[in-house]
Amino acid sequence: MIPETVVWRDGALVLLDQRKLPWEIDFFRCDSYLEVADAIRSMVVRGAPAIGVAAAYGMVLAVLKGEDLSKAKNILYQSRPTAVNLKWALDRMGEVLKKAVSFEAAFAEAVKIHREDIKINKSIGRNGEPLVPDGATVITHCNAGAIATAGWGTALGVLRSCVKEGKTITVYADETRPRLQGGRLTAWELGQEGINVVVMTDGMASWLMKKRRIDLVIVGADRIAMNGDTANKIGTYGLSIAAKAHGVPFYVAAPLSTLDVNIESGELIPIEERDEDEVRSPYGIPLFPDNVPVWNPGFDITPGENVTAIITETGVLFPPYERSLADAIRFGRRSLGED
Amino acid sequence: MIPETVVWRDGALVLLDQRKLPWEIDFFRCDSYLEVADAIRSMVVRGAPAIGVAAAYGMVLAVLKGEDLSKAKNILYQSRPTAVNLKWALDRMGEVLKKAVSFEAAFAEAVKIHREDIKINKSIGRNGEPLVPDGATVITHCNAGAIATAGWGTALGVLRSCVKEGKTITVYADETRPRLQGGRLTAWELGQEGINVVVMTDGMASWLMKKRRIDLVIVGADRIAMNGDTANKIGTYGLSIAAKAHGVPFYVAAPLSTLDVNIESGELIPIEERDEDEVRSPYGIPLFPDNVPVWNPGFDITPGENVTAIITETGVLFPPYERSLADAIRFGRRSLGED
Repeated sequence: MIPETVVWRDGALVLLDQRKLPWEIDFFRCDSYLEVADAIRSMVVRGAPAIGVAAAYGMVLAVLKGEDLSKAKNILYQSRPTAVNLKWALDRMGEVLKKAVSFEAAFAEAVKIHREDIKINKSIGRNGEPLVPDGATVITHCNAGAIATAGWGTALGVLRSCVKEGKTITVYADETRPRLQGGRLTAWELGQEGINVVVMTDGMASWLMKKRRIDLVIVGADRIAMNGDTANKIGTYGLSIAAKAHGVPFYVAAPLSTLDVNIESGELIPIEERDEDEVRSPYGIPLFPDNVPVWNPGFDITPGENVTAIITETGVLFPPYERSLADAIRFGRRSLGED
Repeated sequence: MIPETVVWRDGALVLLDQRKLPWEIDFFRCDSYLEVADAIRSMVVRGAPAIGVAAAYGMVLAVLKGEDLSKAKNILYQSRPTAVNLKWALDRMGEVLKKAVSFEAAFAEAVKIHREDIKINKSIGRNGEPLVPDGATVITHCNAGAIATAGWGTALGVLRSCVKEGKTITVYADETRPRLQGGRLTAWELGQEGINVVVMTDGMASWLMKKRRIDLVIVGADRIAMNGDTANKIGTYGLSIAAKAHGVPFYVAAPLSTLDVNIESGELIPIEERDEDEVRSPYGIPLFPDNVPVWNPGFDITPGENVTAIITETGVLFPPYERSLADAIRFGRRSLGED
């Protein structure tokens, strides 16, 4: 049983504390938007869609406490710079609050974003499912699962849809250093549902592609430029190069809210550099001495040319992405997400 | 100051205990060949050249204790299946012991292998040095340094020779999961000598090649087939694919004893699968629960076509490797190593 990632309860936002998984199922209560910003920054809640939903409720808390809303929006926006869904959700909240500053209106919009995310995830799953053959062996990176979203998941949502359709799937999960979301979250999440999962270190993925038949790689995304360049957890880019070298299809599964219509190419996506201690001492566990110099970019950019297709709630988008993404934005958002 | 990897002292083999680095400088005393085999298996001593030297002294201990020599040779041989230097050193000891079972003869041969290894490493360093420009930024994987050999190092020996010649070098070291030899051993070893080193996770190397100018990748080897296919620490293969995709030269630095003249291609190199707990709990540090299924191949094979050149004690060998390696074996070993 996978607990809900994001819950509104008794006038507060309650988040599944993902720093403690899989060791402990615990929750983190936020009574103010500042606590929500902290929770996003410290990755209590992570995954682009999930932090969008959390930030929306953060704005509800700001309204409830009578805070300076433009400051609140700004602080929440800056809590993580790469994922664009955060901005997208905050902009939607901003539009509603521009009309009237009312708790009811803000709460209604946050609940709408929350419910839509689950619905969108299930559409992504349905759209991606035919791309995955029965008996497939799949590689994934990081965690683009139910707990990275409001529920169901993007990349793992596609696999969940396959299992629901009766397909047998084996998932090799990159452990995803430095923060080990693959080994901790993906392994736990799939294990909870009885889906076959094997954890490997990030450096093993290429060798696995050489040694056994891998049907596809599927990952989530934090921001997608209009040419298909995709920001996702550090390590994704190298995985895409290996997939290309081995002729393995490489899919990105993400909601249209991950598209950044203002950005033509990945060059313009800001990449968060995170605390060096995440490499030296993930979760406080000392792997290296504190004085070892390290580099810790949180994300990388996979060029659109390495992406076989992008699976969204309105359909599977193929290259040339300049056209397919623009079309999806024009027709897709209207028809589904933002009704 | 880097302690010696392998020392014979008071009738015993004393090994730098590399499992405890960089936290503690401690030594592991072996009074029998079985303890040497255990030390190799548990990676008290690691690195293909270093385990060759250690195994040679293991045979000296077997002679000293009047053990069954063919059994001793066999057990030592099987302590790690991938590195061929182990076999090479044991075969040399076997040749000597075939003539007469004498401690003096065995000890003299082990000392010879030991001293030759340092000399060979320095030749590798001298031969490789011109390939590295002053001011170069270099990526390496695992630890092919002084402590992976009897001294000086192979891949890191080349960099050490550059620094000795007055060049400034910056080294990005893959942390090298699962056992973290890059973050623990390479960072420590280079740090001891004031060489600039930055540790990154294995999944960051491709992104680094994209983001900044990388002059070359240099790694060691555990076994090289006669077509240049190179077995080295897991993760090397993926690094070679990324280097090729970015047009970065990819060098292998290794003694000729790493060549397996009996093997035409990498397909025939046995790959050790190690204990799954190395992934879940490296050095007993729990990263994932004990019941998480994992895959843990110790090595992978980089195809010769991804290797720009192989740096050996007799010179730098270029493709086609079928010819250059065969020539090196024919002329090289005679002229240098095994005089």
